[in-house]
Amino acid sequence: MDNFNFYSPTEFVFGRDREDECGEYVKKYGGSKVLIHYGGGSAVKSGLLDRVKASLEKSGITWCELGGVKPNPRDALVYKGIELARAEGVDMMLAVGGGSVIDSAKAIAIGVPYKGDFWDFYRGKAPEKALPVGVVLTIAAAGSEGSGNSVITKEDGLIKKGTSSDLIRPKFSVMDPAVTQTLPAYQTACGATDIMAHVFERYFTNTKEVEITDRLCEAVLTTMVKETPRVIADPNNYDARANIMWAGMVAHNNIVGVGREQDWNSHNIEHQLSAVYDCAHGAGLAVIMPAWMEFVYKHNVMRFCQMATRVFGCAMDFEAPERTALAGIKAFRRFLHSIGMPINFTELGAKVEDIPLFIEKYEIGYGRSGGFVPLSSKDIAEIYRIAAKAEL
Amino acid sequence: MDNFNFYSPTEFVFGRDREDECGEYVKKYGGSKVLIHYGGGSAVKSGLLDRVKASLEKSGITWCELGGVKPNPRDALVYKGIELARAEGVDMMLAVGGGSVIDSAKAIAIGVPYKGDFWDFYRGKAPEKALPVGVVLTIAAAGSEGSGNSVITKEDGLIKKGTSSDLIRPKFSVMDPAVTQTLPAYQTACGATDIMAHVFERYFTNTKEVEITDRLCEAVLTTMVKETPRVIADPNNYDARANIMWAGMVAHNNIVGVGREQDWNSHNIEHQLSAVYDCAHGAGLAVIMPAWMEFVYKHNVMRFCQMATRVFGCAMDFEAPERTALAGIKAFRRFLHSIGMPINFTELGAKVEDIPLFIEKYEIGYGRSGGFVPLSSKDIAEIYRIAAKAEL
Repeated sequence: MDNFNFYSPTEFVFGRDREDECGEYVKKYGGSKVLIHYGGGSAVKSGLLDRVKASLEKSGITWCELGGVKPNPRDALVYKGIELARAEGVDMMLAVGGGSVIDSAKAIAIGVPYKGDFWDFYRGKAPEKALPVGVVLTIAAAGSEGSGNSVITKEDGLIKKGTSSDLIRPKFSVMDPAVTQTLPAYQTACGATDIMAHVFERYFTNTKEVEITDRLCEAVLTTMVKETPRVIADPNNYDARANIMWAGMVAHNNIVGVGREQDWNSHNIEHQLSAVYDCAHGAGLAVIMPAWMEFVYKHNVMRFCQMATRVFGCAMDFEAPERTALAGIKAFRRFLHSIGMPINFTELGAKVEDIPLFIEKYEIGYGRSGGFVPLSSKDIAEIYRIAAKAEL
Repeated sequence: MDNFNFYSPTEFVFGRDREDECGEYVKKYGGSKVLIHYGGGSAVKSGLLDRVKASLEKSGITWCELGGVKPNPRDALVYKGIELARAEGVDMMLAVGGGSVIDSAKAIAIGVPYKGDFWDFYRGKAPEKALPVGVVLTIAAAGSEGSGNSVITKEDGLIKKGTSSDLIRPKFSVMDPAVTQTLPAYQTACGATDIMAHVFERYFTNTKEVEITDRLCEAVLTTMVKETPRVIADPNNYDARANIMWAGMVAHNNIVGVGREQDWNSHNIEHQLSAVYDCAHGAGLAVIMPAWMEFVYKHNVMRFCQMATRVFGCAMDFEAPERTALAGIKAFRRFLHSIGMPINFTELGAKVEDIPLFIEKYEIGYGRSGGFVPLSSKDIAEIYRIAAKAEL
C-alpha cells in the first residue's frame, strides 16, 4: 500500500425532503448571500428550485441566480457567473444540479477571488482561495458532490480539462434520491456508467496489497450491478435510487482509491468524444471503458479475473485465466447494453474518421497518460478503433 | 434506506514515517501549544514520542505531556488532564496512542472549556465547545481516530459510558502501520476483533434495502478475515498491517453504518466485562458477540445467511437456511479462536457468578437496548450464560 492522505470534509445531508433544510446548511457554513447555479428547466419544472428558495428564505439567506449550465459545462458561463457573483457580493455558491452544474459552480468559486483568468487553474495552477460551495444534487453520476474536482470545456478548441483542490470540496451536499426519480432512463444509465467508471479507474492499479480498497471498490460495483437494472425497470424505486446515489458519492470521494496508483485514461480518452459530439460523458464511457479493458487486460490478467469473479460472478477458469478475464469484460459490456447504453461508435453517434481529431485533442490535453498502463497515441487510436466496432 | 447525515472531516495522514509530519498538521489546524497525551511505556520505548516531539519542535509547537492512560481509561486521569491543560494554556490535544488514549484526550478536550463536571457529557449533555484534537495512532482497533465518540470509565462504581459529538472528531489522524508492528499478537488480535465488532454492530439491522452499506460492511469484514491471520503469523507484514489499520478507520467513521438502524448491544454487554475485570475490550467482544449472535439470529435468519455466505464463504443451504446462519456464527467464533482470542468465560477469566453484577451495571448504564433486537435483562443474562460456556 502506498502512503496517502484522505480528506473528505463535506457534510452529506441524505434522504427524502432534505432539500427543505438547505437554508440551514448555507447558514451553518457561513453563507448569507448565495448564487444559485443550475442547468436547464428540470430543476425549475420539478419545483425543486422553488423548494430551495423557500428554504433559503426561511433561513434569511438572500440569493441571485444563474441557470443554463449545459452538460460538459463551458467556460463562457463560468466567466458570466464570476462577474455576476462579484457584482452581487455573493459569499457562497449553491449548485442545484448534477456534475456539470457543480463543476461549473466550483469553477466560479475559485474564479471570484482570483484576479487572473480562472482557466489558469485548469492549466495546472493551484487555487489559493475559493468561495465555499454548497450542493443540492439532482443526479447520481459525477460524484462531484463529494469531490474536490471540476472539469470544464473551453469553447475555443473544445478543450476539456480538470482541476482539483480541497478548497472546492463542497461544504455540504444535500442528496435526496426522490429528486432523481423523474430522470429519464437514459440519463440514469449514463450516471450509473460514470459511477462504475470512477471505481474502475481506481481499481486497475499496479499497487500491490490494497485489499481493503479493492473490496471497497467491489462493494460499489456489486451494488451498481444489483441496483441499476431495478431503477431502469422502475424509475420510482426510491431505495434502489438511494443506494445508487450514495454509491455515486462513495465512488468518487476517493475512499475507494486511496493507497494506490490509479489509471484515469478511459476518462481522458472519453473526454474527446464528449467534447467533440457533446454526448453524455457516461455514454462515451460505456463505449470506451470496455474497449480500454480489452486493450490492457494482458498487463495483469489476474486483476481482471478478480473483477470478473468478484463483481460479475464469473466462474474462475484455472486452466485459462485469460478466458475469465475476457468473460468479465464481456459481462461488463453486456451489463451496460442491458441498461440501455451504447456500446460502439454507431450507437453513440461517433465517427471512425474523427479518430485523428480525438488523438490531436488528447495530445493537447494529456500527452502520454495512464497510471495502470501508460499508453502512446498509437495505443489510444487502437482503443478508439476497438470501441468503434465493439459488439456484444 | 433511512435518512442520514454523514460527516467525517478528519484529515487522515496515512503511511510510513508520517509521524514526522505531525508538527505540520498541528500547525495547519491551529495548534501552538499541545498537551501530548499517551499511555504506558511503549510510545516512549519505541522512540515514537521522541519523533513526535522532534516534529513539533521543527514546527515551532510547544507542549506539555501527560502519560499513564490505561486500557478502559478512567475519569481520574481526565480530571488531571483538564487541570493541566488549563494551567498550561494548551490550545490543542495531541493523543499519541490507541483508542483509550484518544478517548481520554477527547474527554479532556471537551472538559477544558466547560465550567461543570466533564462527566455531564457522559450522562447525556451535548458539548458546545472543545479543544481541537489531533491523533498519532498506535493500534488498529477502536476507530477513535476517525470517530466523534469517546468511552470513559468512572472509577466510582466502574461505570463505563460514552459520549458522541462532531466537536471531538480529530482534526487530523496520523496513521503509520509500521508503528503497529511491535504490538504483541494478543493486542493485535483484540484490535482486529474490535474492528469486526464495529462492523457487525452496524450490519445487523432491521432497515431494508441498504445494499451499499451492507457491501461496504462486507468489504471491511472480508479484509479482516484475510489480513488478520497474516499479521498474527508475521507481525512485520507492513501491507497486512496497513490494510487492517485503514479497515479499522473505515469500520467506525460510520461510512459502513449510514442509512440504517444499528444495534450496539454486544458493546453494551461487553462493557460490563471490561469494566469489572479490566480485560481488553476486544477479548470481551470475542466472547460476547458470537453468543449474542446465537441468541438473536432467529430474528432474521436470512441476514445471518448473508453474513455466512458473503463474509465466511459458507455454502448456502437452501433447504435449511438456519444451518447456514449457524455455520456463519460458528465460522466467526473459529476465526476468533484461530487468531488467539478467548471464546468463553474460562478463557477470558470471567466468572458465571458475576452475571448478576453485570446485569446490575448494564441496567444502570443502558436500561433496555439493542437496535436490531431490543433485549431485556433476562435476555442479556442468557447471553452471558451462552458466552460463559461457549465451545468451538
